[in-house]
Amino acid sequence: MVYNAMEKTLIEVKYAITCNRNFDIIKNAAIAFENGKITYVGSNKNIPYYKSYFDNIIVEEHGIAIPGLINCHTHAAMNLFKGACDNLPLKLWLEKKIWPLESKLTSEDLFYGNLLSFLEMLSSGTTTFVDFYYFNELIDALKVIPLRAIATIAFLDQVPDGEAYWRRFKELQKYFDMANSIKDGLVKIALGPHAIYTCSRELLEKIVEVSEKHNLLVHMHVSETLDEVHFSKEKFGLTPIEYLDKIGILNERMIAAHCVHIKDKDINILRERRVNCVHNPSSNLKLADGIMPLSELLKANVNVCLGTDGSASSNSLNLINEMRTAILLQRGVNLDPEFPNAKDALLMATVNGAKALGLDRHIGSIETGKKADIVVVNGKSPRLYPEYDIVSNIVYSCTPADIMFTIVNGKILYNRGKFSNIDIEKIMDEFNDRALKLLSTTN
Amino acid sequence: MVYNAMEKTLIEVKYAITCNRNFDIIKNAAIAFENGKITYVGSNKNIPYYKSYFDNIIVEEHGIAIPGLINCHTHAAMNLFKGACDNLPLKLWLEKKIWPLESKLTSEDLFYGNLLSFLEMLSSGTTTFVDFYYFNELIDALKVIPLRAIATIAFLDQVPDGEAYWRRFKELQKYFDMANSIKDGLVKIALGPHAIYTCSRELLEKIVEVSEKHNLLVHMHVSETLDEVHFSKEKFGLTPIEYLDKIGILNERMIAAHCVHIKDKDINILRERRVNCVHNPSSNLKLADGIMPLSELLKANVNVCLGTDGSASSNSLNLINEMRTAILLQRGVNLDPEFPNAKDALLMATVNGAKALGLDRHIGSIETGKKADIVVVNGKSPRLYPEYDIVSNIVYSCTPADIMFTIVNGKILYNRGKFSNIDIEKIMDEFNDRALKLLSTTN
Repeated sequence: MVYNAMEKTLIEVKYAITCNRNFDIIKNAAIAFENGKITYVGSNKNIPYYKSYFDNIIVEEHGIAIPGLINCHTHAAMNLFKGACDNLPLKLWLEKKIWPLESKLTSEDLFYGNLLSFLEMLSSGTTTFVDFYYFNELIDALKVIPLRAIATIAFLDQVPDGEAYWRRFKELQKYFDMANSIKDGLVKIALGPHAIYTCSRELLEKIVEVSEKHNLLVHMHVSETLDEVHFSKEKFGLTPIEYLDKIGILNERMIAAHCVHIKDKDINILRERRVNCVHNPSSNLKLADGIMPLSELLKANVNVCLGTDGSASSNSLNLINEMRTAILLQRGVNLDPEFPNAKDALLMATVNGAKALGLDRHIGSIETGKKADIVVVNGKSPRLYPEYDIVSNIVYSCTPADIMFTIVNGKILYNRGKFSNIDIEKIMDEFNDRALKLLSTTN
Repeated sequence: MVYNAMEKTLIEVKYAITCNRNFDIIKNAAIAFENGKITYVGSNKNIPYYKSYFDNIIVEEHGIAIPGLINCHTHAAMNLFKGACDNLPLKLWLEKKIWPLESKLTSEDLFYGNLLSFLEMLSSGTTTFVDFYYFNELIDALKVIPLRAIATIAFLDQVPDGEAYWRRFKELQKYFDMANSIKDGLVKIALGPHAIYTCSRELLEKIVEVSEKHNLLVHMHVSETLDEVHFSKEKFGLTPIEYLDKIGILNERMIAAHCVHIKDKDINILRERRVNCVHNPSSNLKLADGIMPLSELLKANVNVCLGTDGSASSNSLNLINEMRTAILLQRGVNLDPEFPNAKDALLMATVNGAKALGLDRHIGSIETGKKADIVVVNGKSPRLYPEYDIVSNIVYSCTPADIMFTIVNGKILYNRGKFSNIDIEKIMDEFNDRALKLLSTTN
């Protein structure tokens, strides 16, 4: 079955968790969309069209519709290295394993890595993601499976051959053209200075200039480890946040991944500059980076969204797990059983993510006029029963086994275990062969 | 399809993670079983039977067999309250919500609660669990869906009508008979003094006496919250562990759930007395109890196994999540990226659980002569590819969507989303109606 985004589709579900401003949960809901946009969301009693108007009508008596989840930090094709370096701290992980492996990657490896990651994301309810890896191969893969994405142009000049990255500033039009080659405006661009320890001050200043000129998002690893903080204090006499603020790179266009090691003064800066922070709890725990002060950031009204990081770090692109892990962790660490709660988690994974990407007028909630990025969960499962607090069920209890449909821009890309129009066997076989071959070169 | 435990079955898989003493991982493995017992595990080249010997042959080219997971602490039928009291500390959670709700429970409510929990456990790879709730209704449900279980006889006398529990000592034969009414020795009994703050010293001393006389396991909540530690210090001048040790209840028959707040001296006692500690990370985090010093306990060679606690606490009976959460948490809290690792997690969920239950000669690993409690995972999924470190994949990346078969005592109870011989629709509908009716009485 192939659904066309142009087709007029009606979905009827038992509940729609809209994540709109009132956090309305509509019982016996109908959602209509065409041309990739939602034209109606409300009671199934008041659908402003005749049924014959629709090309497709899907009725899921026990379905729960939620906005598509937004994964705000990943390195999708790093799933090629999943499980290959599970027990190393970040610095050794990068220097001893990841960078040597990356030097052997081919474009085809990355293409299949990306495709496999898309299958994993779709099957766990993710419709939009922010990628920070190889740009060209990401675009190639998005031509095959059209998720919504922010493609990051990586910059790092404090590494061997680092000067090559400077040339990318002269090739910006090429990147714009590649992103625009994906239909329906599904792909936007971010500038990606890797981190303060891999980028010179000059490079960061150039990023500020280019970001302002073209109104581009900036996506960066910020205060991920104690090593990074020590480096910053030693080299600049400032915390990473203070240093970045001094450079003028912190503003509402900044998507700052991690923000694990931050103090009150840093939190003030993040709030004042309206920086978007991406919490990647599983990655931070597994790499033993530490724990982001999420509760403090949320209480300070900093916009915090969620990410999985790459599968070489967290071994999973399942954002539902990150919702769950994020709030459990804060409650246990702060000994606070009241905050954050399931609703906070769902907002981080939807509305806050949309805001971080500058796309809050288009995605993040199920509302008329927004893009049809929608996930339908099977509310009738041993995991999600009883139907008492369905938001709690989605965050704490839902698993990929409960995802029925994942819809991006009005296209049903995932339908109960099947991916429309995609040769999943070929993708999996190619991916596995390539990854195992790569990993056989390291030990 | 119904499989009979008497039937001779052969399963061929790509990998068998045996969890035997050498942690052998067998490639291209075959596992044969009959009468509930494993008769062969090894290469599929050396199967010591003709194929015609078997009644069933299952070949899963991409299957990964692991021992059935062992959930060492749950209150299965508390799934009736899932989502109903998500944001309360343990004391208020019990006194304001759970105990009032429990006073309204009927036997049928509990029966359906148990059945639904069994569906959830089977679909996430759990074959054995330790329950601490209503005994009779657990047995009734196990007659319908035969998981392996430890059924706990609850005791608490420091509550209204607490003296009634003392009568249970005189009715022990009734409990033995009920447990024995389940075929194949699937159910064993534990004595369950609830906690030091709900049990008198006399009651605990009686438990010691009865446990010794009948060689019975003792299953108890121990050092779960700071409140409990304060109570113990104030009332007895001792930590909960010290107090319990003084009473003589700590030994290798003790299954001590939680052990969150423990100091070095407590850890020494736990090791010396060979106590089995059950880590319930999601519950402890969600209720804001705190974080068990798991790494210290493992380094001290204390036997630590895993539990989900009830779904009213952690909202999930998925033990895979607990494997993942347990080790991620320690790595992040201790800033140690090397320990614990995925293998430690899998051993906690299998071998260590079997040891805690005194069943290590029968379950916990895939070995000839042991019971056929086996889970087959689909190794070919976007989540579990590449097939580089399959143990890491099982622990960090596997979800219920990847579970193919769950086999208890040689019976295939779960097969790719289907439960053999069970009217799952009826169980779900009855459960949901009953839970919603119960929960409508509270707010």
